[in-house]
Amino acid sequence: MRNITEDTITQAVLAAMSGCSDDRLRTVMTSLVQHLHSFAREVKLTESEWAHAINFLTDVGHITDDKRQEFVLLSDTLGLSMLVTTQNNRKPAECTEATVLGPFFVSGAPEYKNGDDISNGASGRPCFVSGRIEGLSGEPVAGAEIEVWQSDEEGNYDVQYVNPDDPKVDFQARGRLQTLPDGRFHFRSILAEAYPIPHDGPVGRMLDALGRHPWRPAHLHFWVKAPGYEPLITHVFRNGDQYLDSDAVFGVRSTLIVDWVEHPAGVAPDGTVMDTPFYTLDYDFVLNPLEHVS
Amino acid sequence: MRNITEDTITQAVLAAMSGCSDDRLRTVMTSLVQHLHSFAREVKLTESEWAHAINFLTDVGHITDDKRQEFVLLSDTLGLSMLVTTQNNRKPAECTEATVLGPFFVSGAPEYKNGDDISNGASGRPCFVSGRIEGLSGEPVAGAEIEVWQSDEEGNYDVQYVNPDDPKVDFQARGRLQTLPDGRFHFRSILAEAYPIPHDGPVGRMLDALGRHPWRPAHLHFWVKAPGYEPLITHVFRNGDQYLDSDAVFGVRSTLIVDWVEHPAGVAPDGTVMDTPFYTLDYDFVLNPLEHVS
Repeated sequence: MRNITEDTITQAVLAAMSGCSDDRLRTVMTSLVQHLHSFAREVKLTESEWAHAINFLTDVGHITDDKRQEFVLLSDTLGLSMLVTTQNNRKPAECTEATVLGPFFVSGAPEYKNGDDISNGASGRPCFVSGRIEGLSGEPVAGAEIEVWQSDEEGNYDVQYVNPDDPKVDFQARGRLQTLPDGRFHFRSILAEAYPIPHDGPVGRMLDALGRHPWRPAHLHFWVKAPGYEPLITHVFRNGDQYLDSDAVFGVRSTLIVDWVEHPAGVAPDGTVMDTPFYTLDYDFVLNPLEHVS
Repeated sequence: MRNITEDTITQAVLAAMSGCSDDRLRTVMTSLVQHLHSFAREVKLTESEWAHAINFLTDVGHITDDKRQEFVLLSDTLGLSMLVTTQNNRKPAECTEATVLGPFFVSGAPEYKNGDDISNGASGRPCFVSGRIEGLSGEPVAGAEIEVWQSDEEGNYDVQYVNPDDPKVDFQARGRLQTLPDGRFHFRSILAEAYPIPHDGPVGRMLDALGRHPWRPAHLHFWVKAPGYEPLITHVFRNGDQYLDSDAVFGVRSTLIVDWVEHPAGVAPDGTVMDTPFYTLDYDFVLNPLEHVS
């Protein structure tokens, strides 16, 4: 420790944590320090680049608050979130795949009944969503809790409209409902549209410097929970979207891309007579029984 | 990009930055993404561990302000700062070695003349510091700018006393002076003492969880600048300190450990009659000529 050099510094840091009583923490931090040091050596990180990184992380920290999580955006845009999601959600091929939670989930969304309009005034073209929650053998999952959230036609989530001086969320295009005895669910909402992730902060500047765009293909978020099954956090993506091959957060999986069907004005699936065109989306989710979870 | 899996995500992220026009940035970010993903795979980072990391970084960001830089502390305590310092300050063995800048440097310190008392009221036992700045052939470096800073006997730097409502630094135990025509300098200050890095925040909690202490051995910071020579940022450490073998930021180099000599009350090197015991420190710095800098 008195003769630390470029070559011995990593061992010195690892030795310093030899007294850590939490085996898992020591394992994680050992790998983190080794990779952090290997990165700095591999690129011969300069002192000014290091200072730039400190300033960048400081900016990420300072723009982060209760409603904006720039560290999650950073993790998402570097593909870390999707990697962590996939490696923790290995499941039989027949099951619906998981994808990232994203930074716009908030708890406390209102409860709705099947058939309700969850848009709650959010702007957008009408969309009638239906589907079924089932298990691996096709058995219906009754009483499953489904939480959905999405952006409006401007590409904004409700939380992005919150006034900093009055931080109350008016829950819009966000809600919870339960499946019926046959495992089916249906609700009215609005058509999901492609949108850019918030890019007026440090992560946006990073994407710009890397020659990357901030757009995500249109999608609807689902979080499905049912006793006896592994919880499923995923999206359903809108087929035909121009960003399906360049999602800024790497969340697309081909099995989650679905046709959202456009209909002329007329009778909607729930019997409503629509005087404007509307969309329908129907998608079935297959949950992983808990006994399959490693 | 539509079929991202655990195995393809890293390539997908690297492909997304293929349009980056800044070659160095692409090189650095490629290595960073590869190591970040390798780390997550190697430890099979869980979703709750990922969430814990996001919360930790958020806390680091929120405690950081103009006077407290928790990201620098994090880098220091993980050995990254010392690694970046050493790999960017390779120099002939005869030259004085560099060490970390640390989070307590601030610009704007007052100018002093040789012989002045730079403590400016900071608490501590008197210490008379002298030395010489020279080049590789032993040539004196006249007019070199020397900036020094240190903690007081409580282990605090002046910036740690700043009132958040009145963020003016009363510069204490911190100053700039120039070497005389023979390359020598001398000033009065206080004895440096061991101190813990700020550990009431997330980095302190991390050290605690890792079974590590937050202490640094007593040291005096120097930043020496002279035309024709590479700038030198280093410390001089106090021999005998109990933390020389376990510096929380891994900054010790054996060549920088010096005897700080205790003297009984009597005549100090500058002729002052001291009625209390005092210390002396004498250390010569050898600068690297710019022509040797790669």
